[in-house]
Amino acid sequence: MQTTSLALHTDKYQINMMYAHWANGSHDHQAVFEAYFRKLPFGNGYAVFAGLERIVDYVANLRFTEEDIRYLSEQEEQYDPQFLELLRQFTFRGTIHSMKEGAVVFPNEPLVRVEGTIFETQLVETALLNFMNYQTLIATKASRIKQVADGDTLLEFGTRRAQEADAAIWGARAAYVAGFDATSNMLAGERFGIPTKGTHAHSWVQSFMTEQEAFDAYAKVLPDQVTLLVDTFDTLGSGVPHAIRTGKMLEEQGKRMNAIRLDSGDLAYLSIQARKMLDEAGLDYVQIVASNDLDENTIFNLKAQGARIDVWGVGTQLITASDQPSLGGVYKLVEREVNGQMKPTIKISGNPEKVTTPGKKDVYRIIDKKTNKSIADYICFPEEERPRNGERLKLFNPLHPYLKRYVENYEAISMLEPIFVEGKQVYQLPTLDEIRAYHLEQLGQFWPEYQRKLNPEIYRVNISQKAWELKQKMLDEYMPAEE
Amino acid sequence: MQTTSLALHTDKYQINMMYAHWANGSHDHQAVFEAYFRKLPFGNGYAVFAGLERIVDYVANLRFTEEDIRYLSEQEEQYDPQFLELLRQFTFRGTIHSMKEGAVVFPNEPLVRVEGTIFETQLVETALLNFMNYQTLIATKASRIKQVADGDTLLEFGTRRAQEADAAIWGARAAYVAGFDATSNMLAGERFGIPTKGTHAHSWVQSFMTEQEAFDAYAKVLPDQVTLLVDTFDTLGSGVPHAIRTGKMLEEQGKRMNAIRLDSGDLAYLSIQARKMLDEAGLDYVQIVASNDLDENTIFNLKAQGARIDVWGVGTQLITASDQPSLGGVYKLVEREVNGQMKPTIKISGNPEKVTTPGKKDVYRIIDKKTNKSIADYICFPEEERPRNGERLKLFNPLHPYLKRYVENYEAISMLEPIFVEGKQVYQLPTLDEIRAYHLEQLGQFWPEYQRKLNPEIYRVNISQKAWELKQKMLDEYMPAEE
Repeated sequence: MQTTSLALHTDKYQINMMYAHWANGSHDHQAVFEAYFRKLPFGNGYAVFAGLERIVDYVANLRFTEEDIRYLSEQEEQYDPQFLELLRQFTFRGTIHSMKEGAVVFPNEPLVRVEGTIFETQLVETALLNFMNYQTLIATKASRIKQVADGDTLLEFGTRRAQEADAAIWGARAAYVAGFDATSNMLAGERFGIPTKGTHAHSWVQSFMTEQEAFDAYAKVLPDQVTLLVDTFDTLGSGVPHAIRTGKMLEEQGKRMNAIRLDSGDLAYLSIQARKMLDEAGLDYVQIVASNDLDENTIFNLKAQGARIDVWGVGTQLITASDQPSLGGVYKLVEREVNGQMKPTIKISGNPEKVTTPGKKDVYRIIDKKTNKSIADYICFPEEERPRNGERLKLFNPLHPYLKRYVENYEAISMLEPIFVEGKQVYQLPTLDEIRAYHLEQLGQFWPEYQRKLNPEIYRVNISQKAWELKQKMLDEYMPAEE
Repeated sequence: MQTTSLALHTDKYQINMMYAHWANGSHDHQAVFEAYFRKLPFGNGYAVFAGLERIVDYVANLRFTEEDIRYLSEQEEQYDPQFLELLRQFTFRGTIHSMKEGAVVFPNEPLVRVEGTIFETQLVETALLNFMNYQTLIATKASRIKQVADGDTLLEFGTRRAQEADAAIWGARAAYVAGFDATSNMLAGERFGIPTKGTHAHSWVQSFMTEQEAFDAYAKVLPDQVTLLVDTFDTLGSGVPHAIRTGKMLEEQGKRMNAIRLDSGDLAYLSIQARKMLDEAGLDYVQIVASNDLDENTIFNLKAQGARIDVWGVGTQLITASDQPSLGGVYKLVEREVNGQMKPTIKISGNPEKVTTPGKKDVYRIIDKKTNKSIADYICFPEEERPRNGERLKLFNPLHPYLKRYVENYEAISMLEPIFVEGKQVYQLPTLDEIRAYHLEQLGQFWPEYQRKLNPEIYRVNISQKAWELKQKMLDEYMPAEE
């Protein structure tokens, strides 16, 4: 699918660190990195993981072309030719675990875990974050919109306002993962099999002498796909009446008009009036589509005001995640090889939320067997057997240790799937339908309190006693109390 | 450069309108569209046009592949095979005029004007807006940052937070157009020849036993490119002292360390303290690089507080234009063929700012010959000779006609360049250096009042009396006063 080489879609410091490790003789040392975000976007109670398919394609095809090598040879760093030869032969031979696309995920838990040489694990950081950050952001925004749409049809209409082509295409896919019904972007349709929707623009109406002529001409050509845009001149004064006439004409041919589309003005008022006019004309089956800078807040408020809208075309606000256009995911070294042994490592910061949790970690979702709902996520080292064996588990809040709880009758679901093992892809990419079904199943495991758009209940992500103690020990080592 | 077919990077309604025009026999009718935005982003006084190179590449390579045709043949609209055959043979044969990249541009003036059959002019709308909207947005954001940086070096560091790969790469280019000095993205460097910068991450320090060892190892490998990240554990307590030791070691080898980088904490305080420590150690030539969620406001405030920062690494806020992540450019039909004659057309809206100005239009920049500064932009029909001939010109504000003024001693610079004429590319793409020089020249034509970051003076975009009268006449026709 991807034809451009993306090996250089990385930050220069990755190449410089790879070079410095090579010159230092440490490039084959093993390392473990974890990608995660620190804060949920939009004030939401959860995020929807997306981006894995793109990451898999990137990693599987990661090669430096001759042009890439030539370009690197011209850098001011004057990389040694032997290093460039190593890049020429490069393929990714590491191991990657990841959340599955559509998973409901939370802050400070590893979403993707990358193990391998420091050389290869460093190279993939930038692109991996770029894909994960954007697609997870859009899937999460789409999920918020889906929450308020309450079963209405949702169309992704954002391409012209997306931040360039990849954002339009992968953003359309992320929205579909989280429950949107279709996109207007034909390339996303072609590549991913997402249903596509769209009828006509103002320019269609403007290219005829009259609006009526324009509507009738459209209905004649595509009688089974008629959604008429009614606001080119005057929505209630001309658009809706003309659309009704076209609808009646279709009825005479035994056909049914699909919908009208409102694209400006007060959508609550206009939809209520248009609904009345359509119903009075016997066109109660004609749906109303609305577009124009919609997001979860405008949709929520329009519905509260009794707007009669059946289909929502959501553009700019979704495809750019405009109220928070970046996720802020990071990729941190948690273990590295020292004299042939893997050792945990920590990154300390003046900003406490930026301190990392050392050691390679697994993530379990703890499900209450009685209710089938999630209780908490539990992060522990792979060698800890407790959650896998279903033994009594202590859940405690590291920042507020008095908030503790023991759980017994639970199922512990391992959230990180093996994707690549020593360079070999072991994960079969699911279809989009499977991803959507998995996402729905995931959402079903959470009480509505966590899914609320505004001020949701905070879901607990706990770390094991062992992981907590290691973190404290390493913090003390690096930051001894002053005397 | 672009290898993927982008013909389907369009909204479905474009394909449906093309189909409907074909079935209606009107697909060869001539049409004129203009692309423009209605409101300046970020409260800025101007925007910086970008995206043309991408648009040219897109238009010149616009073909439907066999896969595209096959995909279209499977749509529920059941397009007629003859229509699909027309797409198979499609190439763009229209005429495009555009602002040059780097131009200083304003709301409600055509930035790109597309003339051709309604078939081809409709197809290109979505991708053209997608490219123009994003790249113009980022160039404008970068220009704001450049204004406050006051000659400091500016690095674009946003890839991991960009909205997917294209945004990272084209965003880096847009930032460079507006005066950034380098990017961290190597693919942008390779494709566009933008200088690239970057040294090491926290993980470099973490993969050694001590910070000192990490710094020394880096300096040994790349002694001419040493910028050390000093906040992995404790900026002033360990990072800066260790960096100073590495700097002194380099001095013994007759080398000079480039810089240290601060990436967390209070950048004003830390930079002032670090500057003192470096100076006291005799390393007054070592620069200080800062990064961590910077934008024009934080940079402006840090400078006001006396921060001693020489180089600014700007990431998330720039590459996503986070305070306003979309430009909102539109593409509107202004003329179309009626019985073999071109006729102006208008789109009316309940939102007055959405009403279009009918007719195909040129844009002139009116420069005062005495000061060499811009007075206003002047939009008129191509057949109006006045600005070209330098005759006395009436400038008036259409919304407030009492604000009028006559200018005489002016030069009128035509802003829209011919790019394609009847399908043939007539514009030779300038180099990035030429674009940057043009941008600087453009900025030089504006008084500082228009360039101010906060509450800039509003630059006048005037339309000719003739264009204004046509608009009023057409409004009256479509919206007769109620009785």
